[in-house]
Amino acid sequence: MNKLINEEIKYDGFRFNVVQKTYEREDGKTYTRDCVNPGDAVIILPITENGEVIFEHQYREVIESVELELPAGMIDKGENPEDAAKRELEEETGTKCDNLEFLTSYYPSCGYTSEKIYIYIARGLSSGEKHFDDTEEILDVQKIHIDECLKMAMENKFRHASVNIAILMYYFKYCNGGNYDR
Amino acid sequence: MNKLINEEIKYDGFRFNVVQKTYEREDGKTYTRDCVNPGDAVIILPITENGEVIFEHQYREVIESVELELPAGMIDKGENPEDAAKRELEEETGTKCDNLEFLTSYYPSCGYTSEKIYIYIARGLSSGEKHFDDTEEILDVQKIHIDECLKMAMENKFRHASVNIAILMYYFKYCNGGNYDR
Repeated sequence: MNKLINEEIKYDGFRFNVVQKTYEREDGKTYTRDCVNPGDAVIILPITENGEVIFEHQYREVIESVELELPAGMIDKGENPEDAAKRELEEETGTKCDNLEFLTSYYPSCGYTSEKIYIYIARGLSSGEKHFDDTEEILDVQKIHIDECLKMAMENKFRHASVNIAILMYYFKYCNGGNYDR
Repeated sequence: MNKLINEEIKYDGFRFNVVQKTYEREDGKTYTRDCVNPGDAVIILPITENGEVIFEHQYREVIESVELELPAGMIDKGENPEDAAKRELEEETGTKCDNLEFLTSYYPSCGYTSEKIYIYIARGLSSGEKHFDDTEEILDVQKIHIDECLKMAMENKFRHASVNIAILMYYFKYCNGGNYDR
C-alpha cells in the first residue's frame, strides 16, 4: 500500500476543510490527494401509516435550484446519528417520530470527500415544531405515496443519491410484494 | 429567492476548486455557502451474459481503506458521458463494451458539492486493454452475480452511493421477477 508522508490543511471553512495528503508509492514516486472533510450526515425517510413519505423542497445554492429532498442534516459534534435524525426531522418538517430504524449508510463520493451518510426510516409520526436554521430555505413539505415514489425513482425524477437509495431500499425491504410494474 | 451577491475562489486544486458564494436574504442579512466543484463523473455497471457484474477493489486515500466499487471516473473536459464510460471501463478493468444504456444520474451530496454522476449499464463485453492512471490503485477485478449483488445491497455490504443505486435500480428494472427473498 502507498505510504502517507504528509498532510496539509489547504482550506478551513465553516462547512468543511480541505486536507491535501501526499503519498509515496513503492517505486519512490509521490502523488497528492485533496480531501474534503465535511463530517457526517443523516437522511430521514419519514413514512406515515398510510404509506406516504414526507419530502421537502429546498433551495440548494451549490447547484442553484430548488430540489425535492428527504429531511436531512449534519450530525453535530458529539451527537449520535439517531439523535441527529430526530432533531433534523422535527426542525425541518415539524414532525416528531416514535420510532427510528436504521436503513443503510454510504459514502456519497469517496474519491474526494470523506462524508458518510446514515439513512433512517421514521415511523409513528406526530406534530412537533419547525425550527429552521437561519440560512436554510425549506420552501414547503410534500407527502408522496411510496408506490408513486418508486415510480418516480425508476423514471429518474429524483435527483439525489440519498432519495434514490432510501426509496429503492425501503421498497425492496417492505413493499416488494407490490411488484413494480415494469 | 435569496440573491447571489459575490463569488470568491477559496481554493483551486487539481481535483476540484472551492468557491465561496455570498447570498443576501430579503431581510438584508447575508450568508455564505462554500461549494466544491469537482466536475462530473461516470459509474459503469458492466454485466455479462450470465448476469455477473464486474467490480474492482480500489484503495481510497480519502477514507483510507480498500473499497469494493464499480468502474468509475471523471468525465474529461469536452468529453460526453458515454465516451467517458467506455474509456473508464476499458482503462480500469480491461473490458470493452458493445452497448451502453443510461440508467440514471444523481447529485451525490448537493449541500456542498456540485458534482453530478451518470450511471451506465455496459453489455456486450469483450477483452480490451487495462491502462491505469499513474496514481490509481486498482488492486483486482471481481465478478459477482446480480442476485448476490442485491442480497449484498440489502445487507448493507456496499459502502458507496453509486453501487447501491446502480444495483437496486438495475434489479428493479431487469430482475424484479426474481422477487428478492425478504
